[in-house]
Amino acid sequence: MTPVELIKKKREGATLSEGELRWFITGYVAGTIPDYQMSAFLMACFFKGMSEVETLTLTNLMLHSGIVIDLSETPGTKVDKHSTGGVGDKVSLILAPIVAACGVPVPMISGRGLGHTGGTLDKLESIPGFRTSLSLAEYKAVIRKVGAVLIGQTYEIVPADKKMYALRDVTATVECIPLIASSIMSKKMAEGIDALVLDVKTGRGAFMQSYERSLELAETMVRIGTGFGKETVAFITDMNQPLGTTIGNWLEVVETVECLKGIRGIGDGSGDLMEVTHVLSGAMLMLGKKAKTIAEGMALSRASIQDGTAYNKMLEITEAQGGDTSALENLERYPLSKYTMEVKTIEPGFVGEIDSLELGLTSITLGAGRERIEDIIDPKAGIVLSKKVGDSVEGGDTLAVLQTDREAILEPARERIRNAYRIQSSPPRTRPLILSYVEKGGVKTWM
Amino acid sequence: MTPVELIKKKREGATLSEGELRWFITGYVAGTIPDYQMSAFLMACFFKGMSEVETLTLTNLMLHSGIVIDLSETPGTKVDKHSTGGVGDKVSLILAPIVAACGVPVPMISGRGLGHTGGTLDKLESIPGFRTSLSLAEYKAVIRKVGAVLIGQTYEIVPADKKMYALRDVTATVECIPLIASSIMSKKMAEGIDALVLDVKTGRGAFMQSYERSLELAETMVRIGTGFGKETVAFITDMNQPLGTTIGNWLEVVETVECLKGIRGIGDGSGDLMEVTHVLSGAMLMLGKKAKTIAEGMALSRASIQDGTAYNKMLEITEAQGGDTSALENLERYPLSKYTMEVKTIEPGFVGEIDSLELGLTSITLGAGRERIEDIIDPKAGIVLSKKVGDSVEGGDTLAVLQTDREAILEPARERIRNAYRIQSSPPRTRPLILSYVEKGGVKTWM
Repeated sequence: MTPVELIKKKREGATLSEGELRWFITGYVAGTIPDYQMSAFLMACFFKGMSEVETLTLTNLMLHSGIVIDLSETPGTKVDKHSTGGVGDKVSLILAPIVAACGVPVPMISGRGLGHTGGTLDKLESIPGFRTSLSLAEYKAVIRKVGAVLIGQTYEIVPADKKMYALRDVTATVECIPLIASSIMSKKMAEGIDALVLDVKTGRGAFMQSYERSLELAETMVRIGTGFGKETVAFITDMNQPLGTTIGNWLEVVETVECLKGIRGIGDGSGDLMEVTHVLSGAMLMLGKKAKTIAEGMALSRASIQDGTAYNKMLEITEAQGGDTSALENLERYPLSKYTMEVKTIEPGFVGEIDSLELGLTSITLGAGRERIEDIIDPKAGIVLSKKVGDSVEGGDTLAVLQTDREAILEPARERIRNAYRIQSSPPRTRPLILSYVEKGGVKTWM
Repeated sequence: MTPVELIKKKREGATLSEGELRWFITGYVAGTIPDYQMSAFLMACFFKGMSEVETLTLTNLMLHSGIVIDLSETPGTKVDKHSTGGVGDKVSLILAPIVAACGVPVPMISGRGLGHTGGTLDKLESIPGFRTSLSLAEYKAVIRKVGAVLIGQTYEIVPADKKMYALRDVTATVECIPLIASSIMSKKMAEGIDALVLDVKTGRGAFMQSYERSLELAETMVRIGTGFGKETVAFITDMNQPLGTTIGNWLEVVETVECLKGIRGIGDGSGDLMEVTHVLSGAMLMLGKKAKTIAEGMALSRASIQDGTAYNKMLEITEAQGGDTSALENLERYPLSKYTMEVKTIEPGFVGEIDSLELGLTSITLGAGRERIEDIIDPKAGIVLSKKVGDSVEGGDTLAVLQTDREAILEPARERIRNAYRIQSSPPRTRPLILSYVEKGGVKTWM
């Protein structure tokens, strides 16, 4: 067996045996197979795909390349949620306290923002003192004590994925469904979960821009989770406009707190955000055996907002991870951006579309995200949306407000945001927010 | 412009601009673009191909990555021949003295054998003292003096191709026609040629096993040569049995000498070898302006055997490159292999096919070739074919004789060679040896 033979085999579209794939991946992680052979192999996978067995084997190899966390000392069915990433997607921040408040433990290992979508870790770290780098012992202690924990990836977990992902990133081999699915699923299963809810975004602001590709990714991940004995369901949700009304790290924490307090939510600009949140929470509560159906879980989720337990759980999590809860209790004390600028519409009509990719990219220029891994984020910076799809506007109405410390960027950012709003003469057709539901048994249209 | 963007562009099947390709290749040769990005790019080229302009640009970049030899001080139209490599293919050794004897200078830079096909350099070096590593000054002096020169690649010529070829070899990206064509053509054009004749082998013993792929390679190379202003023609020739009667370095020199002396040739087992040789020589003489047509060139080629000028030229070339001409004059004095073994047929009938790939691979085990670049060749070792396709055999007839110093290999080699001969009850259909002729104007069936 030589690396060239295996690359050639994949190049010809054949399926590698478990032993062959194990030898290749293990050799790569150990450094005996060089980057240049792995990148040729990955490009061959891009064109030829991987079989279901290959994908499961790859996931398994990555999973066991590092520590698989054992959370058996925490009672209950541990359930996590993973999103493929959207603009203004602060669902994890709202859902983790809700689900934990309802009695299902949530172990969550998240990533940082890179590119146009934000990262949960960056959002949490905008809370003064909030630590996302916990030791394994602290991770276990926090989930045991408060029922939820949100940390970043450590070097102990799936090192094979880290090495392969870094290579894929620089060799144009990211966009390959079996590789994406095994990368996500190996990380999630290393957390110590028993079940998983997936939110696969689709549309212009999403990683997967077409519905078909999103569905393929969802089905692949559900198959992997099921194959590993972890009940896994997936939702395909629309990302053709940002979720909620804020884009930017602290701004999203503010929206999170207001949604958890019930000040904002269904009926206002955060309605789509809370719709997605309750559905995902509902599914997590069903998988966590606190509800018989998703609908029953959604009712529990809504109740946890109304009775204040979800908000209190957010304070508990924040305190357990070293965060300053008084910042959440007194949102108005947080430092303000040096510059604020309103983006106004010129023509009257209806908001037909909001290009969330463009909003995500613009928010980076304001300081809310990274273009390079070493960039420093400004937690205050971002965009607040005053109008969302379907809203009617008069000429001169404010569409959005941008906040930044970077004066030079104000004008160009305003232009970009104005152009990202498409104003049309008639109300747009209502689009469903949640498109499909995927479980072991197959795909269903949602509702 | 980043390497990832260009890899992605190729991955999506787009055409890179000349500037993009120049930046990428130049960066790779300079070491600023790493192997792992180039290998992903090469695999994308394998799947998506390259346009005609990209192929020309790549060839040009490789050609000018090193020295382009100027042979203008040698008068006449310099013509070389290149073969994609076959088993028992000693055409270069016979044709170079013929064409030089007829007054057309032949500058020839050849490769070593790797895999199942032998290398011209290894064959020449089986002549005691023959030097294939000449300095550029010596190279120019020899062709000026004797009208032909046969050397190996130097580090001064197409270093970009050397680096890329080494990477392709270990990343399963060799079998890509634009990459093969630009690699061959950049090397050939760096020699200082004015025109080129190509011999593209097809069949089981050839690099390109199907006729369609062979034709595509031939057309691509003819387009490149024409694009660079060098008149280029190609023949597609059959490699479904070895050429001539010998496989192995010194054995092939012996067959060469006997063919040049006219002792062997049309009418015996070397008939196919001399048929190909005269056609290619004839085309070279036409391109070299010593004949109006290929047929006229073929007549000159045959005459050079009959009047002894071709054999004398072989002695001149050998002497000019430090070789011991007495070894050629007294073939019987050469050392013999320790072991000789006849391979006999069991059943009577007709030779229907000879698996030249299998014969090439078996000859390596006898010591005639390399499995790894660092292996040392035994010049004496090899196979002499007593029967060729179409010959009738009785049970017990000798099919071939093998020669080696490796006792342990005798029995398994005999079995492999016996199995490589397919004996059938009726005479096989005659197959044409030269299938097609490709020139700037298009493809023609030969004869």
